[in-house]
Amino acid sequence: MKLGRLNHIGIATRSIAESIAHYRQTLGAADITEPFDLPEQGVKVCFVNTPTGTGMDGTQIELIEPYDESSPINGFLAKNPLGGQHHLCFEVADIAEARDWFEGQGKRILGPTRIGAHGTPIFFLHPKDMMGQLTEIMETPKGEGH
Amino acid sequence: MKLGRLNHIGIATRSIAESIAHYRQTLGAADITEPFDLPEQGVKVCFVNTPTGTGMDGTQIELIEPYDESSPINGFLAKNPLGGQHHLCFEVADIAEARDWFEGQGKRILGPTRIGAHGTPIFFLHPKDMMGQLTEIMETPKGEGH
Repeated sequence: MKLGRLNHIGIATRSIAESIAHYRQTLGAADITEPFDLPEQGVKVCFVNTPTGTGMDGTQIELIEPYDESSPINGFLAKNPLGGQHHLCFEVADIAEARDWFEGQGKRILGPTRIGAHGTPIFFLHPKDMMGQLTEIMETPKGEGH
Repeated sequence: MKLGRLNHIGIATRSIAESIAHYRQTLGAADITEPFDLPEQGVKVCFVNTPTGTGMDGTQIELIEPYDESSPINGFLAKNPLGGQHHLCFEVADIAEARDWFEGQGKRILGPTRIGAHGTPIFFLHPKDMMGQLTEIMETPKGEGH
């Protein structure tokens, strides 16, 4: 297992619209994607693109709003009513290999491997097995290998 | 105000040594800096460098351990005994200009501008004014302007 790119950090919010206004007006974000629904995951998301020396290809900020009453984000927002940092997502070259790696270390994986917000397979690792950090592992999108 | 590079995300831990072992052994991090003390800020820190297509210049993960009993990290760890995501840090070109900008928007700044872990001036914004997100603003190190 080799640590891959830090693809995004997930930030929970009660209102994506309000978060977008905050990132644009208060923090000066210039590039935010259109929100879209991921009903199977119970979330509505969009991405704030952040700059690097070579373009808008920095680690993204994923804004996450509950999709409905059964959203897994509701528990987080009950504890953190203003929202806040929810998870980290690292890329890997091969999702099946990564799953085997973490399982072999006895780390609890939350549910099956599924398609994430970037259209590639993902899974989540239990924060209690990851030093308090809810951790998403996603396969690097094709054509963006490092 | 223009959103700058996402320099690092801060992760609180009871033990930097344990976190380093976790990042190396479980997540496969190859490049972690030596821990050092920032006694004025009540913390001991080190950085996990993350890869991008052009090198180990991705958004860093700052591991943060309390320096002593009066550390501001202790309150976070009391609520999150395993540790976890603590703050985000964005770069700006000019720290004084950024301070004026946020003050002009009525955002509470936590204490004076001071020298941060990268040797450049920083300040923190109150999470209650930043949609639940403790936010650090740091001046881009000289020679690394984007």
